[in-house]
Amino acid sequence: MALSKFALCLWLCTSMFLLCTQIFSLELDPQTRALQEADRVISLPSQLPMQVLFRQYSGYVTVDKSNEKALFYWFFEATSKPAQKPLILWLNGGPGCSSVGSGAAQEIGPFLVKEGPTLKFNKYAWNKGMYLIVFTANLLFLDSPAGVGFSYSNKSLNVQGDNITALDSYAFLQNWFKRFPQYKSHEFYIAGESYAGHYVPQLADAIFDENKKSAKENYINLKGFIIGNPFLDYETDRRGMYDYAWGHGLISDALYQSIKAKCDFSSQILTQECWDQIFKYNSLYEMIDMFSLYTPTCALNAPSSSGKKLAARSNTVRVSGLFHMIPSAGHDPCTANYATEYFNRPDVQQALHANVTKVSRPYILCNSEVGNAWKNSTFSLLPTITKLINGGLRVWLFSGDTDGRLPVTSTRYTLNKLGLNIIEDWTPWYSHREVGGWTVTYEGLTFITVRGAGHQVPMFAPQQSLQIITHFLANKKLPSLAF
Amino acid sequence: MALSKFALCLWLCTSMFLLCTQIFSLELDPQTRALQEADRVISLPSQLPMQVLFRQYSGYVTVDKSNEKALFYWFFEATSKPAQKPLILWLNGGPGCSSVGSGAAQEIGPFLVKEGPTLKFNKYAWNKGMYLIVFTANLLFLDSPAGVGFSYSNKSLNVQGDNITALDSYAFLQNWFKRFPQYKSHEFYIAGESYAGHYVPQLADAIFDENKKSAKENYINLKGFIIGNPFLDYETDRRGMYDYAWGHGLISDALYQSIKAKCDFSSQILTQECWDQIFKYNSLYEMIDMFSLYTPTCALNAPSSSGKKLAARSNTVRVSGLFHMIPSAGHDPCTANYATEYFNRPDVQQALHANVTKVSRPYILCNSEVGNAWKNSTFSLLPTITKLINGGLRVWLFSGDTDGRLPVTSTRYTLNKLGLNIIEDWTPWYSHREVGGWTVTYEGLTFITVRGAGHQVPMFAPQQSLQIITHFLANKKLPSLAF
Repeated sequence: MALSKFALCLWLCTSMFLLCTQIFSLELDPQTRALQEADRVISLPSQLPMQVLFRQYSGYVTVDKSNEKALFYWFFEATSKPAQKPLILWLNGGPGCSSVGSGAAQEIGPFLVKEGPTLKFNKYAWNKGMYLIVFTANLLFLDSPAGVGFSYSNKSLNVQGDNITALDSYAFLQNWFKRFPQYKSHEFYIAGESYAGHYVPQLADAIFDENKKSAKENYINLKGFIIGNPFLDYETDRRGMYDYAWGHGLISDALYQSIKAKCDFSSQILTQECWDQIFKYNSLYEMIDMFSLYTPTCALNAPSSSGKKLAARSNTVRVSGLFHMIPSAGHDPCTANYATEYFNRPDVQQALHANVTKVSRPYILCNSEVGNAWKNSTFSLLPTITKLINGGLRVWLFSGDTDGRLPVTSTRYTLNKLGLNIIEDWTPWYSHREVGGWTVTYEGLTFITVRGAGHQVPMFAPQQSLQIITHFLANKKLPSLAF
Repeated sequence: MALSKFALCLWLCTSMFLLCTQIFSLELDPQTRALQEADRVISLPSQLPMQVLFRQYSGYVTVDKSNEKALFYWFFEATSKPAQKPLILWLNGGPGCSSVGSGAAQEIGPFLVKEGPTLKFNKYAWNKGMYLIVFTANLLFLDSPAGVGFSYSNKSLNVQGDNITALDSYAFLQNWFKRFPQYKSHEFYIAGESYAGHYVPQLADAIFDENKKSAKENYINLKGFIIGNPFLDYETDRRGMYDYAWGHGLISDALYQSIKAKCDFSSQILTQECWDQIFKYNSLYEMIDMFSLYTPTCALNAPSSSGKKLAARSNTVRVSGLFHMIPSAGHDPCTANYATEYFNRPDVQQALHANVTKVSRPYILCNSEVGNAWKNSTFSLLPTITKLINGGLRVWLFSGDTDGRLPVTSTRYTLNKLGLNIIEDWTPWYSHREVGGWTVTYEGLTFITVRGAGHQVPMFAPQQSLQIITHFLANKKLPSLAF
């Protein structure tokens, strides 16, 4: 009886506490409230008429006044009780790819673009729950660095590279938290994929260091990070890519042997005769989607045998007609085209408060100019990862195992090089009745493969990805039995 | 003008010749005609009401009177002008798998089983043409050896193995041609998959040798053979399987290293400590479909986490519900279950003139008793293949590259061991606008990979398979440009 009274009391107190948290979260000063409201996205063109039960914001945050540099973000509150939920920052790679057009609109955001272009609700958005697990999150997408997506600088961008990206992203976060102070105390996680294998640990490192030396008001409650098909180490990532290509029947024995003989991937500078072999390998990218080996390419992009672009006959070539040729699970390989078209629409830009300075260039999903002008790219992120694991951060990596660009083989080599002790080796994990992939638990790091998923894991395996992020946030092992 | 008259004359003569061929083909003696008519399949239970525009036959051919051994066949004439078309014999592997229930009903036959079980027409059946190419074929399926599918012996089968299978299949062919003499002069090809990597070259070898020494009336007009995901060489097939499994992220580094350290695959006898590692590897088969890495398993077979068979709740678990989880292109992983059910139906057996002796055992798609009792299995088929290539036969191999059982890696090792000169190395081939896979032309052998296809290539990539067989029959290279 005493216990029951105690339980009731505890429940009342908890409820009161949660209520207070929500009330306090609304208690923003008028200026902050006005700034937030200015960024509030009320509705989106081609948005389905269903009611949106969460708030969303987007706009610019200045990170460097002298260079008139401003980074663009899109923020979605969790679908339920955002005040109690962690905050995830998602970063796409490239370098040069827009997190808004890629991660938000094609992978994990609540609205996904489709043919039209129009929008559909994402059943597996990361700001939603799953299996009644309450570990939904508030989701922040950042176009980073300047020159990517809607982010810009009115000065020259000839200093782009890993360092400036981390510094600018850190500055963005500090200023964004000033605009959204109600999220400052939330658990904070960074997630991303591909070249964000650099961005994510580098930003985490910047936060980690600044947290120690900065004033309390600049403290960011960083708890960990998670990266899919990450680019972490030039040596192992390159070596693994060619091994994977041979093992998956993509290149000849001759080319493979020649790459192995002529390339020393442990060197920071590759020889010309190595590059000559790599150039031969690169022709693969012109034929199949190396980011997802077994799905069709987009007919709107592919040159025909006569060398003419198929786009010219897009009215007669139905993309859906390709779906029966190779396994695809309904994946539309032209989504990137729809996203590009959607975010170039003036009404979409207006709704998102994007491109307010009316830059002359169109919105580009992956800006190769940014990538080509990259000044510094860290050879290996392994020392940074080791430092951050030792610093107590939660670190998870995952790998869609049908990606040829940053394949599972590469990440396995990378993990071996990292040299952590294995706590539990290579165990299947289940997504309902099917093996979702395999997982290895290291001391301080969890690695997960996603069976049959390409480079952009949430695009190819949305349900499995939501399962992974909810388990990451809950710091729980994925289920090792069918359910 | 003279040329035009000559052309007209040539056309008339050719037409007359073709007409004569057809007329003569109908001129069978009454006894043969009666035997054929006895085997004629008039209709099939659950056959769609569409008109079937080709003739089909099935029944038994005695191969060994002393052992009361009879092999069961199912034969489909080509959909157009069968008298002018080649004859293909298709063999499934195992050892122990029924060509009738597998190859005919799930892969390349004109009727495929589906849920119900019922039948559907196969758009890509190998007795049909494609792209207006006239190289359709007459299709013969054989349950081989006795004990497999509907084939039987009323005596003990304790001498089963490669040798007896080849001899019995040869005897079958001789007797089958006596029943269908109108096909005796046709170009004859053997096709198959998996363990038929043994059956096909061994039968070809038997025919090749017998053709030289036998009387003219026993001559079989063998022109070549084609095998998918073939089991050809114990050393390379085994080695390639584990390499493939590691490279595809299926096994731990530790298990892989342990297999490499403890197994000498060049030896005909593996050590116990090698087998111990292989047993660990084999547990993979309990979790995913190793014959098609990225498709779902059949929920009707899979044990649930609680150890109970899901079959018990098959009414609530719709197999189709799995399709959204991983790429599948509409492939139903329970087809083997439907085929087993279909061929056990008394009305189906009656329609096919099968199980006339009413054996006590049910029809089994893959009879493990046959495989387990196998007495001899040739270590390497490479000498046989070399001999047959030198003998002028057309030899093609193909490999679905998402098969984990006899993977593309294994066949690449095998081909290297075969040591033929390369005429054209690793070229993409196209299935319409998509890369269907890659192909290598050796002196005397063509190798083709099929992108994204599992072990039973025609099941997973039916259109590509029909494309391959039509090009094989026409002895033409697959297209190297999109069309």
